[in-house]
Amino acid sequence: MAERGRGWARAVRGLLLDVSGVLYDSGAGGGVPIAGSAEAVRRIKASGLKLQLCTNETQATRENFVRKLQAMGFDVSAAQVTAPAPAACRLLRERGLRPHLLVHDDLVPEFAEINKTNPNCVVLGDAAENFTYANLNEAFRLLIGMEKPVLISLGKGRYYKETDGLKLDVGAYMKALEYACDVQAEVVGKPAKTFFESALAELGVPPEQAIMIGDDIVNDVGGAQQCGMRALQVRTGKYRSSLTAFLGLCLPASFPWTSVGSQDQHTWRGNPLKTSAAASPTAPLAPAEHHFGLAAFPSLHPASHGNKP
Amino acid sequence: MAERGRGWARAVRGLLLDVSGVLYDSGAGGGVPIAGSAEAVRRIKASGLKLQLCTNETQATRENFVRKLQAMGFDVSAAQVTAPAPAACRLLRERGLRPHLLVHDDLVPEFAEINKTNPNCVVLGDAAENFTYANLNEAFRLLIGMEKPVLISLGKGRYYKETDGLKLDVGAYMKALEYACDVQAEVVGKPAKTFFESALAELGVPPEQAIMIGDDIVNDVGGAQQCGMRALQVRTGKYRSSLTAFLGLCLPASFPWTSVGSQDQHTWRGNPLKTSAAASPTAPLAPAEHHFGLAAFPSLHPASHGNKP
Repeated sequence: MAERGRGWARAVRGLLLDVSGVLYDSGAGGGVPIAGSAEAVRRIKASGLKLQLCTNETQATRENFVRKLQAMGFDVSAAQVTAPAPAACRLLRERGLRPHLLVHDDLVPEFAEINKTNPNCVVLGDAAENFTYANLNEAFRLLIGMEKPVLISLGKGRYYKETDGLKLDVGAYMKALEYACDVQAEVVGKPAKTFFESALAELGVPPEQAIMIGDDIVNDVGGAQQCGMRALQVRTGKYRSSLTAFLGLCLPASFPWTSVGSQDQHTWRGNPLKTSAAASPTAPLAPAEHHFGLAAFPSLHPASHGNKP
Repeated sequence: MAERGRGWARAVRGLLLDVSGVLYDSGAGGGVPIAGSAEAVRRIKASGLKLQLCTNETQATRENFVRKLQAMGFDVSAAQVTAPAPAACRLLRERGLRPHLLVHDDLVPEFAEINKTNPNCVVLGDAAENFTYANLNEAFRLLIGMEKPVLISLGKGRYYKETDGLKLDVGAYMKALEYACDVQAEVVGKPAKTFFESALAELGVPPEQAIMIGDDIVNDVGGAQQCGMRALQVRTGKYRSSLTAFLGLCLPASFPWTSVGSQDQHTWRGNPLKTSAAASPTAPLAPAEHHFGLAAFPSLHPASHGNKP
């Protein structure tokens, strides 16, 4: 069974990596790298696997984001980053939309080339401190005044982890505006299928030969599975065993990954987006000290283990 | 048909009145009374009808709220106000809950007698400018850290009207925390059935002999109907014809009220909480200039019209 379980891993040619909570924990001063992750990225690249960062980061332009990662010791380039803002700009251009932006100050330059006069939609990002009552109310009034309100959200995450604790993410504010205006937001970024497809296209690998690695059971794991990929959940970042247990996942306590596969019989319970709380885990989760992260990755990869018995 | 339609009105002995959008529009400097409403309250009282204000106001203590209304010329007393904060205090005491408050500064004195050390729940009101990212994040962290998060929301309104425009109400922020923490809030205030029952008890009139009058189709009209009351929607405050049309209501353009009855065959389409958008109106709504408010009330009341043919 272990041998069969390793079979699909031999076909893997590329990885999509979530960033916050996998490579580093964001926070004051730019955040701190997660122990072993920079070395893991080097080993992954040395093994010949293709690598693309697939992030919902919307607190910086892609260029500044990569500069920060490089300063932390990660060997990555801007071309290796798939992020929501450039995807949103493509969508705005295609549909002739003129956005009112409620985003982080540092993300605004991504929209420099976009016409923002007389807005006919609202673009919502992880605005953090910019999520004042006045700013949210301004976005609300614009939307409620539109004949057909268009709300575009750069992700729908509930929260993320910074060095000083958990922080509300853009998804919470998206829900606030959806409720107030009785609209449904269009999500650009994970877990949108089109976003994963863009990342795979940039990776140059089909879904069945790629693995998504992230700390978010819905946006990383669930989103990737909707796109036909396998996915692994690291136990760093915002990983919380209670949430995984709630979603009805089960895994051996000795396994260093929370692994969820829709195509492989030897991984664990199916799509977390479709798994109800009623499906109780058949094996209890490992206690909280089992926080394995990206540093453990090569133990699973065929390049290092493929020729072992 | 007109005669039969007036039959139920003869049995009416008491009125529950929403306040913001019916008696006055809130805003900078306390807001402004809606033309004719103070006179209408006087006429209603002179007619012998009992009167109770049934409000989701959570930006002031009940005493200060009444002082403001009196200064605007409304003949009302604190005993005639049913508001969420006193109801929440009863609930907190009954269940031994110690709240973390995310409410308007002016509401805090309502909770003076409540133990707030080592919080085991969050109470959310219309905090307005207090809805900063830092404050919402603090409430989120407390909730997500609880074994069984308890979120109590003083109402679930989407928005309300102030003199300078529409404002986001507590419901939007309730939805944000519900989503982030994967919990369901307990709503104290309209449209909760227990809240209407308290208001009726204070009014001293059974539901079938009372009418709720408000500007909110869900929280005033729908909530009252769930409690077995008839309800009327004024076209002042946040009333928007498009929303009523969306909910599938229809009414003659000449009628000064948006009237919705669950028990009377001669009023209009049923419960807005159960009416789908697919039920298209059989008569188009009156255009926006038909903004009739509380001032028009006595034209419907038997005390002034009961003995006309």
